[in-house]
Amino acid sequence: MLAGTVSCPDWVIAQEAEKRMKTIFQLADELGIAKDEIIPYGYYMAKVDYQKLYSRIKNNNNGKYIVVTAVTPTPFGEGKSTTTIGLTQGFGKRGKKVSCAIRQPSAGPLMNVKGSAAGGGLSQCIPRTEFSLGFTGDINAVMNAHNLAMVALTARMFHESNYSDEILCKKGLKRLDIDPKRVQMGWVIDFCAQALRKVIIGIGGKKDGIPMESRFDIATSSELMAILSLVKDLKDLRERIGKIVVAYSKSGNPITTEDLEVAGAMTAFMVSAINPNLIQTIEGQPVFVHAAPFANIAIGQSSIIADRIGLKLSEYHITESGFGADIGFEKFWNIKCRISGLKPDAAVIVVTLRALKYHGADRDAPKIIPGNPLPEEYVLKNFKWLEKGLENLFHHVKIVRKAGINPVVCVNKFQIDDIDELEFVKKTCKEVGIPAAVADHYEKGGEGALELVDIIIDVCRNKSQFKFLYDINLPHISKIELIAREIYGADSIEFSPLALEKLKNINSNTDFSDFSICMAKTHLSLSDNPELRGVPKGWQLFIRDILVFTGAKLIVPVVGQINLMPGTASDPNFRRIDIDLKSGKIIGI
Amino acid sequence: MLAGTVSCPDWVIAQEAEKRMKTIFQLADELGIAKDEIIPYGYYMAKVDYQKLYSRIKNNNNGKYIVVTAVTPTPFGEGKSTTTIGLTQGFGKRGKKVSCAIRQPSAGPLMNVKGSAAGGGLSQCIPRTEFSLGFTGDINAVMNAHNLAMVALTARMFHESNYSDEILCKKGLKRLDIDPKRVQMGWVIDFCAQALRKVIIGIGGKKDGIPMESRFDIATSSELMAILSLVKDLKDLRERIGKIVVAYSKSGNPITTEDLEVAGAMTAFMVSAINPNLIQTIEGQPVFVHAAPFANIAIGQSSIIADRIGLKLSEYHITESGFGADIGFEKFWNIKCRISGLKPDAAVIVVTLRALKYHGADRDAPKIIPGNPLPEEYVLKNFKWLEKGLENLFHHVKIVRKAGINPVVCVNKFQIDDIDELEFVKKTCKEVGIPAAVADHYEKGGEGALELVDIIIDVCRNKSQFKFLYDINLPHISKIELIAREIYGADSIEFSPLALEKLKNINSNTDFSDFSICMAKTHLSLSDNPELRGVPKGWQLFIRDILVFTGAKLIVPVVGQINLMPGTASDPNFRRIDIDLKSGKIIGI
Repeated sequence: MLAGTVSCPDWVIAQEAEKRMKTIFQLADELGIAKDEIIPYGYYMAKVDYQKLYSRIKNNNNGKYIVVTAVTPTPFGEGKSTTTIGLTQGFGKRGKKVSCAIRQPSAGPLMNVKGSAAGGGLSQCIPRTEFSLGFTGDINAVMNAHNLAMVALTARMFHESNYSDEILCKKGLKRLDIDPKRVQMGWVIDFCAQALRKVIIGIGGKKDGIPMESRFDIATSSELMAILSLVKDLKDLRERIGKIVVAYSKSGNPITTEDLEVAGAMTAFMVSAINPNLIQTIEGQPVFVHAAPFANIAIGQSSIIADRIGLKLSEYHITESGFGADIGFEKFWNIKCRISGLKPDAAVIVVTLRALKYHGADRDAPKIIPGNPLPEEYVLKNFKWLEKGLENLFHHVKIVRKAGINPVVCVNKFQIDDIDELEFVKKTCKEVGIPAAVADHYEKGGEGALELVDIIIDVCRNKSQFKFLYDINLPHISKIELIAREIYGADSIEFSPLALEKLKNINSNTDFSDFSICMAKTHLSLSDNPELRGVPKGWQLFIRDILVFTGAKLIVPVVGQINLMPGTASDPNFRRIDIDLKSGKIIGI
Repeated sequence: MLAGTVSCPDWVIAQEAEKRMKTIFQLADELGIAKDEIIPYGYYMAKVDYQKLYSRIKNNNNGKYIVVTAVTPTPFGEGKSTTTIGLTQGFGKRGKKVSCAIRQPSAGPLMNVKGSAAGGGLSQCIPRTEFSLGFTGDINAVMNAHNLAMVALTARMFHESNYSDEILCKKGLKRLDIDPKRVQMGWVIDFCAQALRKVIIGIGGKKDGIPMESRFDIATSSELMAILSLVKDLKDLRERIGKIVVAYSKSGNPITTEDLEVAGAMTAFMVSAINPNLIQTIEGQPVFVHAAPFANIAIGQSSIIADRIGLKLSEYHITESGFGADIGFEKFWNIKCRISGLKPDAAVIVVTLRALKYHGADRDAPKIIPGNPLPEEYVLKNFKWLEKGLENLFHHVKIVRKAGINPVVCVNKFQIDDIDELEFVKKTCKEVGIPAAVADHYEKGGEGALELVDIIIDVCRNKSQFKFLYDINLPHISKIELIAREIYGADSIEFSPLALEKLKNINSNTDFSDFSICMAKTHLSLSDNPELRGVPKGWQLFIRDILVFTGAKLIVPVVGQINLMPGTASDPNFRRIDIDLKSGKIIGI
């Protein structure tokens, strides 16, 4: 997102473009999807009946698979969604059959500081407001399914405390003897709510549940959302949901959603969510939307299902993985691609002048604070900072190359940017053998991304030598070490006593041996400390806690001070959102 | 709902009927709604663009307005939704242009004991599962809008505790100085979660909010849901939302959503929810669905907007108000009709043999426990209990007559019911001058409701002498007394010290003087004690607490032990809900 750099707000541009939108039926038809393979939500959005569609197209050849990642972003973001959309529009301009897959925005950042994830300027997807706010209900489905597990857990604990084994037996229930000190799951809500990070529940009277500590995370970080990103089909979804460990019994046995007899009902909430959503760019190319953001605290990938469909229907399919290549791309590479079996042909690394200057700045340079304006130091011409900042970019290029994927650098132009500086970045990349283009899709739409498109088309002619960072059957500690050293550049790892104890239990459980690692780490630094810019050296990765997502098959080390529930800032976006009573339209999103 | 009385589960009947559903386009067209006046959600459900539609049809004559209410129900419910749908089908069979308005099921009872509210047997609305589970997202919209207010409140309290007045001023914020002991609003979730009734939040570290007591209510009891039922248009919605008092400052000033600058964003979540939903009965008549159930702890009415549209498009429009005439109908009458200005032509009072026997039973007769089978005492022939139980029915008839509306008794037949007993009830009603019919729509669909339909058509020829129970400008205590004595049959009222103190404050606030009374009372008895059957005599209504919904303009006395967050029972429905992996369909709803 590039908020604040144009005279016309994004939502105004979007509303203008929406007057000329294709109907969803035309959009689907042009992409090769039949009318009875979509479930319209109004005349401009739809869910795609993936099972019906995929069974028809599964023998098509796959198109080229392009993933969009970025350097270590500033708190403003560097326009990765904008680039994904702009690139899609660019391929469209070149007459290529193209689609992209992005993630449904969470109401957390939308109402807080970051705003929507619909792109910006002349590279946006529409209908913007409907997409940004609730959309077709997938995040709500995840939230409700997740919280239903907690309702089942807490109600069961309560009833077991009231009833004898005999009465439980009459009701067809076996005592699970859940340990209130070993509940793994929390509740979720799709907002940034620091006040709910740690709560005590069940403190009413004797009919009001069992007192215990609990927590709320943001809904997009739910294990169910990770499952939605990774799932193959409905059967896979049902099985994975049933394997989610909600808590442990007092004797140490895992209590799953299946034990609570709630896995079927949870899946029922998600039957519709498994179908990817379809909308369009403001230039009329198809945009799949599926799963959710937050590659820092969650998997943060668009879904495998959306990519599978896009690849079968398009010559070029562009997918987005959140934040920098250290977290979003690393998860795309070692988790998502491992499960999907798909091999990307190119990785676009988005970089901005401001991010490079931020990473290359002197030690006493001002901080960038979300909600405050960008300090002018990061706008003024400064080749010294820029050049130094390239270290961060080159580190991300190295990460992409470790995957055997061909990188392409996209220098994402802002209106205020200096041409010489832009060209300097591009030239320096080329000098060290990295294909690069300056892209101006924010201001010019697809037209502004043509140089980038042409380079990508060229790069895609070379086959990738795709390989994983780690063998899935390595000990977990080795997988974590590989990510810490090879990707983040850490010297060593320190575990908290809690994390160490959990790691021992995890290691001894052979059920977990083929689980992937899904780090929860700040996106604002390659390190675990959001203050460290550039390419931090001589630091130790601190693992505070480890979660195990038994349904998603993920080990989730929680590093540094990262929190699965973000906080709402003092000047949040919701202050500026309202309704235009004349048109009935929402303004400010 | 009449679960358990047929060999074939409701959802199987529904799935069969869904094979022959009209498309939403055909359904809308037959009702006189244009294609561009609906927003399809798939091919069989839609939202109706009420503003566009209403502005076109507002000069049409209104059809006859029929409200469906009931005797004091058993915990199983007496088939009010089934009767509403069956009646709609019956009018259809008679060749009348008909529509009905029901409420969107809450996931609370759906996943707990009561199940869906789609009707049952051969009187259902379809698509049943989609309708029952999430539908077009209105309850989620209410939940998110409501919780956003709490996010705004708790984040504001947190930031005010960290920042000086000067820093707040720089951010354009004025210190609100919110009193953590006088927060009025809680959080909401659309489940029955006793463990969340009373919670402590903000107990993490120094970045994790302000410690304070809080609570979660069921989403359908949110003030926002009351507003959705009562609202006239988007402007009215925006204004009402802005008036919601979330908390009080330490100096006693009300803090509204407008003060928190969150009212616009809350409204943004509800822009789509204000449009009523359209589906069909299994015999193809139009069913509007809007707002939510829980007439005990909430207003529990289908919306004014849905009724306004239905009346303009149909000869007969049937609307549903929840539970018995003492609560659902009383709120319909004195709150909803006062705001809408609409005057009902007839009120159908649904009664069942089992409910009458339950109310007329001896003191030592078994209880009816949700989730357990119905004790056979209430099935076996028993004229003594039946006759005694009629007192309850006659009390509800009296309530309806106080409104000046003509009552019609619907003896809702179950397959196991005894014909002599059914005829006895009908005959006894007629003897005392109450039009009555035995209706068998559960087993026979619209055909089974024809006798009832004909009586209603006849009754609607006589003009109602509609009048309110209380003048809106009476002192609140007088309004409450009128409801307690005239409707519930209480001898007197007792206030808790808390309620008394709140009442004083409310009385002294002239802003509240035209607020209606929206009692929160058990639906299982005319009294405030769910154990007291029939027509309890010589009892005192206990008012425990009083809430003020400043946006909905409602004073909400909380009586007896009623709780705004129901609990999940030990044998909840979610145990029996799952996915049929072959068809991809949800089973058990």
